Amino acid sequence: MQFDSLDDIAAFCRDLPIGDARAAAAAMVRQRALTKPPGSLGRLEELAIWLARWQRRELPRLKQVTVAVFAGNHGIAARGVSAYPQAVTAQMVANFAGGGAAINQIASLGGAELRVVPIELDRPTRDFTIAPAMDVDEFLAAVEIGYRTVPPDSDLLAVGEMGIANTTTAATLCAALLGGGAARWAGRGTGVDDTGLACKCEAIEAAVSFHGAILRDPLAVAAGLGGRELAAIAGAVLAARRHHIPVLLDGFVATAAILPLAQLEAGIVDHCRAGHVSAESGHRALLRELGLEPLLDLDMRLGEGSGAALAILLLRAALSCHTGMATFSEAGVSGAGG
Amino acid sequence: MQFDSLDDIAAFCRDLPIGDARAAAAAMVRQRALTKPPGSLGRLEELAIWLARWQRRELPRLKQVTVAVFAGNHGIAARGVSAYPQAVTAQMVANFAGGGAAINQIASLGGAELRVVPIELDRPTRDFTIAPAMDVDEFLAAVEIGYRTVPPDSDLLAVGEMGIANTTTAATLCAALLGGGAARWAGRGTGVDDTGLACKCEAIEAAVSFHGAILRDPLAVAAGLGGRELAAIAGAVLAARRHHIPVLLDGFVATAAILPLAQLEAGIVDHCRAGHVSAESGHRALLRELGLEPLLDLDMRLGEGSGAALAILLLRAALSCHTGMATFSEAGVSGAGG
Repeated sequence: MQFDSLDDIAAFCRDLPIGDARAAAAAMVRQRALTKPPGSLGRLEELAIWLARWQRRELPRLKQVTVAVFAGNHGIAARGVSAYPQAVTAQMVANFAGGGAAINQIASLGGAELRVVPIELDRPTRDFTIAPAMDVDEFLAAVEIGYRTVPPDSDLLAVGEMGIANTTTAATLCAALLGGGAARWAGRGTGVDDTGLACKCEAIEAAVSFHGAILRDPLAVAAGLGGRELAAIAGAVLAARRHHIPVLLDGFVATAAILPLAQLEAGIVDHCRAGHVSAESGHRALLRELGLEPLLDLDMRLGEGSGAALAILLLRAALSCHTGMATFSEAGVSGAGG
Repeated sequence: MQFDSLDDIAAFCRDLPIGDARAAAAAMVRQRALTKPPGSLGRLEELAIWLARWQRRELPRLKQVTVAVFAGNHGIAARGVSAYPQAVTAQMVANFAGGGAAINQIASLGGAELRVVPIELDRPTRDFTIAPAMDVDEFLAAVEIGYRTVPPDSDLLAVGEMGIANTTTAATLCAALLGGGAARWAGRGTGVDDTGLACKCEAIEAAVSFHGAILRDPLAVAAGLGGRELAAIAGAVLAARRHHIPVLLDGFVATAAILPLAQLEAGIVDHCRAGHVSAESGHRALLRELGLEPLLDLDMRLGEGSGAALAILLLRAALSCHTGMATFSEAGVSGAGG
């Protein structure tokens, strides 16, 4: 896929496939025949039906599961919005490569292939309080990197990110596209103190004020107030939709990354589920805005795809029940009122 | 272990080991050295430390994981409190043996050994609105069955149950021991209609009124208003405590089963975590009474250990991060403010 302009992305979004209602209905019928009171597996039933809808199969599969983690650096880091130095982004990418990070352990447990994609770490985005973070070409390049990262034959995609200062970027996107001011969206990220939090709020307000003219255009906001790893996540989510791959989102940053898409085209993120709600304060409000109900709520706030990868385990459980359980008639179990 | 009287159980409870604070502290120190902002793995960190405390090892293990599912039948079923006939208890035990139930799939995914223990299914407890459900000897026998089911070398125990009508039994125990009336504790179980729910409330009120004289004695309540599979769960939880095995509880019935122990001796269920909160209406209130914060909230209400077994996956993730991640110094990653 090549995107030559923001309009190309908008046109692409208007033309994406919807889910397969017939496969979903067949999965629903199957769920009702399994040896359990109807509905008693709760969200595990809903997840099996959701997989069926987007994979277009009554019996979905989870053979090829991809965890994509995109990394980027942010000019806004210079404003003292993070507890960690910018060098940590590259150090953590090296840690991913060496297998020493949380996401390595969790992705491995989930039977997923981990793809780590650093994007021009030596070329941070510009400080968006005084300039566009990216120009359109830089933004489109990052979207395409994300798009190309997704193996078209994946059965499931989990997306995450790494980027010092990127909760500030995410909060700025939310403030720009949803309003409510900096305080609604700024949290403590990796653990900033009160001074750091004040810097963060100041940066967000300054950015929204500086970019006032473009706030009605979600893709222009994604370029001007976003980050490369966020743009790549948006690209990956579009690729997944094109290839009928359901998606698990990670935390606040990954969810903010798809907000511009969601505003661009109704239903464009229907193939996504929130793997978890993070402890980062804006995430719960953002999920509510997007109509996403998180699968896990474990007070995590690490990023790097960890919450999304953890939710892969729940999908495996949902699928193993869906495909492995006996039906009432197979098992000779009496039904309700029987 | 042989229990010859209710007093034997009470004495046993007073003499049980507490957790290992030194192993927990070492695990906490380790967590802070791993390549992530402190606390950013949220409850996964707390779970690793909890495993360390109860296994008495800085680096816990999950090699031998046991899922114990106890089944029993209930005289109260005759009062129309369930949507399913009593025969389903034995049919589902056969389904467990055949590998066709949800718990088979989830326990297998969690790498756990499933032990299904039907207890005198052809001899239901007595209708506790008009008689004691069990006499003391019957109760003690069920406790001992549960106790003996737990392999002493288990690294983790998940407990669940199967028993048509047993959400009525669980609600009755809660009403008897915690008060608040039938309406606070009665839910729809496997899916009773309004008439069934009314029958359920009526049965609970009748039972509490009939047994008024024993309500101050938690173990007498567990015998007189309980069920065999609930007594067995209590026995299994005591065995786990004796053998330093952390425990995951399943839903409303499994949690109600340990309520008498919790009332008997402070801290007696500190080695237990709630695998999930079920959709059965009384469960959330019961967890709050016990100070237990559930790990999962997926609208499940199946029983058979399914929610507890699902939480095994989270423990495996917590452990894999705890033992598999690199430290800041190993990975050459800068710390906060560094």
